[in-house]
Amino acid sequence: MAPPSTFRGVNSCSSLGIGLAGFGTVGSGVWNTLHRNGQLITGRTGGGVTLHISKILVRDPARVRATVTEVPREVFTTDWRALVEDPAVDIVVELIGGTTDAFEIVAAALRARKPVVTGNKALLAERGVELFALSKEMDTPIHFEAAVAGGIPIIRTVQDSFIGNRIHSFSGIINGTSNYILGRMTDAGLTFEAALAEAQALGYAEADPALDVNGWDAAHKAILLATLAYGFPIDPKEIHVSGIEQVRPTDIAFAKNLGYVVKLLAVIREHADGSVELRVQPSFIAKSNILASVHGVFNAVAVHGDAAGESLFYGRGAGQDPTASSVVADLVEAARSLRQTTGHRGFLPYRESGELRPVSETSTAYYVRFDVTDRPGVVAEIATVLAAHRIGISGIHSPVDPSDPDAEFKDMVFLFHTCSFGKLQSALDEVAELDCINSTPVVFRIETLG
Amino acid sequence: MAPPSTFRGVNSCSSLGIGLAGFGTVGSGVWNTLHRNGQLITGRTGGGVTLHISKILVRDPARVRATVTEVPREVFTTDWRALVEDPAVDIVVELIGGTTDAFEIVAAALRARKPVVTGNKALLAERGVELFALSKEMDTPIHFEAAVAGGIPIIRTVQDSFIGNRIHSFSGIINGTSNYILGRMTDAGLTFEAALAEAQALGYAEADPALDVNGWDAAHKAILLATLAYGFPIDPKEIHVSGIEQVRPTDIAFAKNLGYVVKLLAVIREHADGSVELRVQPSFIAKSNILASVHGVFNAVAVHGDAAGESLFYGRGAGQDPTASSVVADLVEAARSLRQTTGHRGFLPYRESGELRPVSETSTAYYVRFDVTDRPGVVAEIATVLAAHRIGISGIHSPVDPSDPDAEFKDMVFLFHTCSFGKLQSALDEVAELDCINSTPVVFRIETLG
Repeated sequence: MAPPSTFRGVNSCSSLGIGLAGFGTVGSGVWNTLHRNGQLITGRTGGGVTLHISKILVRDPARVRATVTEVPREVFTTDWRALVEDPAVDIVVELIGGTTDAFEIVAAALRARKPVVTGNKALLAERGVELFALSKEMDTPIHFEAAVAGGIPIIRTVQDSFIGNRIHSFSGIINGTSNYILGRMTDAGLTFEAALAEAQALGYAEADPALDVNGWDAAHKAILLATLAYGFPIDPKEIHVSGIEQVRPTDIAFAKNLGYVVKLLAVIREHADGSVELRVQPSFIAKSNILASVHGVFNAVAVHGDAAGESLFYGRGAGQDPTASSVVADLVEAARSLRQTTGHRGFLPYRESGELRPVSETSTAYYVRFDVTDRPGVVAEIATVLAAHRIGISGIHSPVDPSDPDAEFKDMVFLFHTCSFGKLQSALDEVAELDCINSTPVVFRIETLG
Repeated sequence: MAPPSTFRGVNSCSSLGIGLAGFGTVGSGVWNTLHRNGQLITGRTGGGVTLHISKILVRDPARVRATVTEVPREVFTTDWRALVEDPAVDIVVELIGGTTDAFEIVAAALRARKPVVTGNKALLAERGVELFALSKEMDTPIHFEAAVAGGIPIIRTVQDSFIGNRIHSFSGIINGTSNYILGRMTDAGLTFEAALAEAQALGYAEADPALDVNGWDAAHKAILLATLAYGFPIDPKEIHVSGIEQVRPTDIAFAKNLGYVVKLLAVIREHADGSVELRVQPSFIAKSNILASVHGVFNAVAVHGDAAGESLFYGRGAGQDPTASSVVADLVEAARSLRQTTGHRGFLPYRESGELRPVSETSTAYYVRFDVTDRPGVVAEIATVLAAHRIGISGIHSPVDPSDPDAEFKDMVFLFHTCSFGKLQSALDEVAELDCINSTPVVFRIETLG
């Protein structure tokens, strides 16, 4: 039997006070986890860390979900300044999302020298430069384990456990919603639209799923991983991101036949010249690759370090309790830093700038789906353009039965040998001018992973 | 291009000095990693941590391997007291192995208030009670990431990242040598002896492979994981360990036919009554389980926490560079703790004792191979004993072709439904009395993993 928790919620004298900005899914998960495991945490820190939640920012206290019991009404506030400035708040947890109010709250907390814990990947990817500068100036850490891959401790792993490693590459499945949708398209033959509707019905996708399906949620996380590994801030405007909206059942079927599965993949790689490749897009990966076995809303990040070699970190990438697990780990870290006289364990960028490799100079093999008018000569015309650009073709497929004289096709699929994306793009721009081509070709990468 | 390293080996004024006890594979890997990535480490710590190796303990300086260049001769010593007591040594790294001299070195370092980094699982599993008590008394940490699963940061993950989690269970493949041998028996049909000889020829197994193949290397690691998760010391004498020496090609073939693979598995589980199950043995696991895909000398640990849910950590479980990666991460942690005025981040047991569940009260399904005299009545005799003990039989197999009138068999395999190991053992003791049974039955667990 678990002993009764020492977690008292509020008014604990010798313990550190948490100001929780946001009390949705993750916020109430943090309350529950501290309630359930507070005594365990105190024991594991040798009695050094006791935490209580002293203030909670909500839009409307009357609408707080009933699933969280025992929250005294006086803990709630609707004024974020009151939360940050409350002397009973030692650490601020930002869980409201967005990049405007959240920015104000985090900045105000840092200025008040209160450590910040956040799960807000968009905020740090878009406005990290300002916030990390403030973190440095105020000698006050920002912890963000919950911002990448939910309950998987990939931030701390890269920052601390692999500190002695030059990181060659990451390959990550870091958006559970996209992975669920692609999985249902693969296993149940659903269309993108039907799989998305199912994900929404199950609560795996937001009412507005844009950031999940357009790749930007994964891109924000990839930016944070790259900044951790290579030390310099990365401008979201400079990276290449495409989402899964363009994936059609025909692509899934082709991938299957060719021995691949389609995954939304974040690829980060340091080149020999020091430049960093960072891109997010639907990719074909070999069925035998361990990342192909990452199903449903699970996340996984493969890391290749020069000392540690190949590693993989797999787990729940979202959800109330897994994300709360990461927030609580960061709270303990923040609490420990408050007990120190100098220095903190939060991340700070350690290079002012670095070179991001242009996507045009990144190379893989490709799968390209052309929307064509079915007439003799189509294949020859496309192939001729590619030949002029010196791009090798490794396969041409159409989804019709060649023995059926009445079959007409719309989709024609080409597989291309490895070349730079810039070279491919030039060729495809020229192909798009052909009168047999009816819309912009759809390009997926074929990845060869470590 | 990597900038030139700031690592200067010795005589760096503002940096922390490392005393390296042992300069074999891992020790020279630590030297190389610090040489290669020293500047990167200093950058990542905001300039806070610069490390150099100021003393190296070896048996015979003349026999130091030539692969490590640039080690000035005066760094070597053959006297461990000189290393620990050297004022230029701030942190002691113990890599000599064993539990006698290594104990003296670690204890002396702690008494001198010098943080310790070690990869010695046997030392901590066998004598951790004394050493952690000394660590507490002297307020000086012992870091041991390198002791479990090489380059996989499982220690820090359990200790820090999952600090808010009650850990329900671990299932781990944490001995690469055994995993390699079982893999070769499975993929190439080798006997145990041939696969072991191959592993030795490739350098994957020691000249004396006893601790690897008898399960004790994995057991020492499992003890450390359990102590981290549940906080109390565990006496190696009280746990159930069996190794892979008894695995025969016939077992591998049966497992395959039944949809399983054989793995040396460490299982740790907390029961509802607070007792902790800990055992290491060859186990059948379903082919579809992600642990079944852990090949060669790789390691993996699946963790189930009450908040984080299911996670898996996979990577290189041994070898020069991966283990050095973990040692270097611990060195940075130790260096940071030296900069603090109070408290350290090393692990300390936080419960004086806890209840270890007797192996007789742990339950799984089982595969049991009987060495029998082939005569009519054998199956009935064995089945009757099992029935008397109320143990269900889910299958009986013999490896002969029933259509061959001359076939004679020696091995008879029974699959049993889930029951306690104690109940099974009582039944098997009685079966062993039958005159058709020629030697002690061989038992493997059939695991149902989260």
